[in-house]
Order: sequence, then structure tokens, then C-alpha cells
Amino acid sequence: MPRCEPAPIIGRLMPDLGEFELIERFFTRPARRATLGVGDDCALVQPTPGTTLAVSTDMLIEGRHFLSTVPPERLAHKALAVNLSDLAACGARPVAFTLALALPRADEAFLAAFARGLFALADREACELIGGDTTRGPLAVCITVFGELPAGAALLRSGARPGDDLYASGTLGDARLALEAFRGQVALDADAFGQVRRAMELPEPRTGLGIRLRGVATSAIDISDGLTGDLGHLLRRSGVAAVVDVDALPRSAVLAAQTVALQRECLLAGGDDYELVFTALPSRRDAVAAAAANAGVAVTRIGRIEAGEGLRLIDRGGAAVASEFGSFDHFRA
Amino acid sequence: MPRCEPAPIIGRLMPDLGEFELIERFFTRPARRATLGVGDDCALVQPTPGTTLAVSTDMLIEGRHFLSTVPPERLAHKALAVNLSDLAACGARPVAFTLALALPRADEAFLAAFARGLFALADREACELIGGDTTRGPLAVCITVFGELPAGAALLRSGARPGDDLYASGTLGDARLALEAFRGQVALDADAFGQVRRAMELPEPRTGLGIRLRGVATSAIDISDGLTGDLGHLLRRSGVAAVVDVDALPRSAVLAAQTVALQRECLLAGGDDYELVFTALPSRRDAVAAAAANAGVAVTRIGRIEAGEGLRLIDRGGAAVASEFGSFDHFRA
Repeated sequence: MPRCEPAPIIGRLMPDLGEFELIERFFTRPARRATLGVGDDCALVQPTPGTTLAVSTDMLIEGRHFLSTVPPERLAHKALAVNLSDLAACGARPVAFTLALALPRADEAFLAAFARGLFALADREACELIGGDTTRGPLAVCITVFGELPAGAALLRSGARPGDDLYASGTLGDARLALEAFRGQVALDADAFGQVRRAMELPEPRTGLGIRLRGVATSAIDISDGLTGDLGHLLRRSGVAAVVDVDALPRSAVLAAQTVALQRECLLAGGDDYELVFTALPSRRDAVAAAAANAGVAVTRIGRIEAGEGLRLIDRGGAAVASEFGSFDHFRA
Repeated sequence: MPRCEPAPIIGRLMPDLGEFELIERFFTRPARRATLGVGDDCALVQPTPGTTLAVSTDMLIEGRHFLSTVPPERLAHKALAVNLSDLAACGARPVAFTLALALPRADEAFLAAFARGLFALADREACELIGGDTTRGPLAVCITVFGELPAGAALLRSGARPGDDLYASGTLGDARLALEAFRGQVALDADAFGQVRRAMELPEPRTGLGIRLRGVATSAIDISDGLTGDLGHLLRRSGVAAVVDVDALPRSAVLAAQTVALQRECLLAGGDDYELVFTALPSRRDAVAAAAANAGVAVTRIGRIEAGEGLRLIDRGGAAVASEFGSFDHFRA
């Protein structure tokens, strides 16, 4: 690594800029934590003694995971952020990542902007780029991220128990609202559009919160596919049911100004939220509040865990909300 | 992880088979080394105390790294093999890998065959699939592989010194010859074609050899982009020159039956060989032979390291071979 493509099939990314130079120019920095970073066959990393390694991988494809309108800085940010969000959901501290990048052509302006967005977030999260692969192809970004956490301390999907409080971080639904605006399904003024577009394109991984929820939360998952879908995974893994107050779900002022039907669709089945949904004992409410305050992230109690199976939605008066989002059977995939 | 795609943009891979079920059905097996494998936000792995982690990532794109004619078993094998080859070049023992797979559609026969090819090699190498991501998109496979080795034991590109012997494992050039046959540039009989096609589609990662070369070889790299290009990387990293006897380069009987010009092109600039090129002190010839014998891999002395810079090609009589492959400046990329 970097592995070069077999010469007979592969043209170079640029006439004057091959893969090797591209990596040297845009993606090579002095190794920090890594013993050996970009530029040998493998990167070498020395794990901290006694820690467990948390690993996650995500591939983003143009037109499926991002729109062609996204600026390269934001694409890079998001590709790394969605992976860091998986670390956050486990309570792992980011350490390093690898990047595989397929590009239709090696556009220098694109690469410079992509690298800028990538390293801005990576530096902030102290997460080091240790290796990569670049190739020509349909625009795709595949990142694998490594984190560390003390052995046995990981937040899992399987730890929720009846009686636990149910929480969500940040606000939900803005990314979905942005998508509706991009598709012309909803009209927003420029300020509102900029705000929800930012939520879609620059999600903030909740790594600081995840780390502080170790020993406090009983289970956690990050919301990438909509609250009901991802909460459904957590409930099934834990073998429990949940009741959620849809009126308690945290939302931005922009989303709160939409119709109730659209709000609920965005909140419950939005996708691309990258917030944490997690559970904790009612006796730990102060600890949850402290973790949230220390992480600088709002946390909202949205319901509770019950015995049984399935997800029940209610409004603030306690009445059942009949909804296509009421059953996560729709979201098994 | 697995991260599901945001529902509004993404159709499911199959009407009746979502990402979650696809992963459960084709790619989930009981966790072994991993504390927690496929199915939570992250995979958790406990590093062996005192070891260094070696990490490499490669993305393969249809039409660039493999032809559409490749059977899915072989595609999966190759995608994992090229990553394991990077571990081999560092002398690392394979431990685990993640898989990100983009597919135009979720064809069950394709997936079953892909999983079969993947696990056949993974099991043989004791390398555990610990996480993944599947999405719809242009056919692409991105694998990140993790290996372990004792701290300080990694084979690097930078360790070659003047006077060292220069070796290559296995045989070179068959993958390139297969590509020429696929393109109709050369005619081979069915047996010969089957043999070189196998070399192209089922490369054998030299992990066993790499592990045994720890403490024996002074430097190593795997040949993915042709001997001269990859040897060039090693020479520049080590700050040395090399002389290579082109007549000594190991080749199959099929390649040896081709014209001298084609042989040299395939041997020197073939690509997709996934053999190791490495250096060792002349005093360690017996140790190199023992490592090769124990690994069950042929190893051939092909030249020596000299002071200076650049790559000099000679024939068996010692005469200079004037060749476009003589300078790795052509292969800086």
C-alpha cells in the first residue's frame, strides 16, 4: 500500500501525476502515532497495551450516499464522519484510518479541497491517516477507521434492559429535510436551506459523547438509516421493546416549522442523522446530563425501554401514533 | 457498521433482501478472534500484547482491476489476496479484515459464489471477516486487512544495502500474459490460457514466506505494478541501486515459450504478480533457502543491490539490456 494498479489495464489518474505522486502530494504527512504511515506496503500501528481495537468501514458512492452537488471538502468530511460515528456508538476513541478513493479523473482542485476537508476533521478528532489506495473509477470513498477503548468498555447494541431511559443526541431529521429541499419537495428560504444542508453534508460525529457514555449508557447505536430502523436493530439485539414520544424528539427550528407529517417522516425515517441513540438506567440521569454537558452535545430523553418486542410510538398526551413508522419490520433491511 | 444507506436516496439491493439480511445471510459467521464481529457498530478485536498492527487497504474496481469475465469466487479471492500480499511484504501474520462491497444488484448466485471464494482464502489464511458494508453501486470491492507482527520485526522497503542479494518469489509475468491473451494480442492453447488466467485471477499471497523472512530479509515489497516499478519504490526508499539479470527472472513454461520481447515485457512491467521481491545479505543464502522451503514457495536470486541509484538490467552474459524498462523514472507513478 499504496498498491498501484496493473499497468496494462490502468491509465494513470493524470498524465503528469501518478498514484504515487498523488498520494505523496495530497495525502502524506509525517507519521504521528503510527510507526510507519503512508508509503510502505502496510502502515504499522502500536496498539496501546490493554486496549481493545474498534474497527468500522463504510463506502460512499456518488448518487447513493451523496449528491454530485456536494463540495469536495464536505464529501471528505462526511466520509470520515460517518465512520467516526460508528466509533462514537461504541464509545471508542479515534486513532487512525485508511482511505481508498476512486476518482473519474485526478482533478487537482478536487483533491486539494478533499484533502483539506479530510484533515480538518481528522486533526480535530486526532485520527491519523495511515494508508490508502487511489484509483480511477466512479467516484467512491471507502474509509476504514480504528479506535481504541479499554477492554470490556464498549457500548454495544445488546445492552438495553426494560426500565432503561431512551435518549437521542443533537437534533434529528434535518438531513432528510435537506434532501427533500434538493429534490424540490419542500421550499425553504436560503438561511434555512443552508442550515439543513449543513446537517446533511457536515454531520458531526459524537465521539466525545460516546467516550463519556462508557460506564453510563447500557447500549448505543448511531442513527444512519433513520431512528426507527436503527433503534429497531438495537431493540432486536437487546431482546426488548421501546416506547418513543414522537413529540419529544429533538428537532431544529427549521424542521419544527414544517408540517407535522413531514416532521415525523424526517424525525423517524430520515437517515443520515449520525446522532447517537442510547439507553441508561433512570438512576443515571445526572451522569447522562454530565456526559452531555462535558461533550458539549445536547441530549434528550425520548422514551423508555420495555419488556417484549417492537417499537410503540406515542404523542405527548400518551396517545398511540398510528404510523407506518410504528413497526420496524418495515426497516428490517 | 453495517451502515445502511439513507432510505430516501437508496433503494434496497433486492426487494426481499436488504443490506442487513444480505450481510446476515452471506457474510456472518461466529466471531473467533474478534470479541465482536459483524453486526454491531464496530468490530472489536483484542490485539496480542506486544505486537505491532500492520494495516493495508485496496479497492478493486470492475474494468480497472478486474475484467467483467472473472467468476465471483475468483474476484473475492483476488480482492483479499492483493491485501494479504501487502501483509506478506511486511512479514505480518494475517488476523482480520473488513469488506466493503458495492454491487449493481444483489444477485444471490453472485453473492453465494463471492462469499465462497472469500471464505476459502480467509479460512486458509486464518484471517477473520470482522465487519463490512454493502451498497448498491458500480461493482467495487474495498478490503482493509489487519495483521500482527512482533514490534520492530516488520520488513520495510527502506532496508536494502549495497551488496545485498536480490530475490523474487514464484514466477513473474503470467498475469500480464493472460491479459494479453484476453485482449487477443497473443494466442495460447486452452491449457496454457487456463494456467496464466489462473495466475491473473487467483494470485497466491506469500504470507507464509513473508513471516519466515522476518530477521532474514533486509527489505521487501510485493510486486503489484510490475517488477521495475515496484523494485524502483524499494530502491528509492532504501537509497540504493540494483542490477537485475533479466535471464534469471523466474517464469513459467508458458511464458518461456513466448518471444523474448514479450517475455521481458511481461516479466519486467507485467503487474498483478503479487510475488515478493526482497533483499538479504549474501551470508544468509541458506536462511533464505530454508524460509522458501518451509513456506513451500520457490525463491530465485535475480540480482544484487549496489551503491548509487537506478536499476540496471543485464542478460546472463552480463551485457546491458537496453530497455524502456531500464529506468524506473517511467514508473514513478
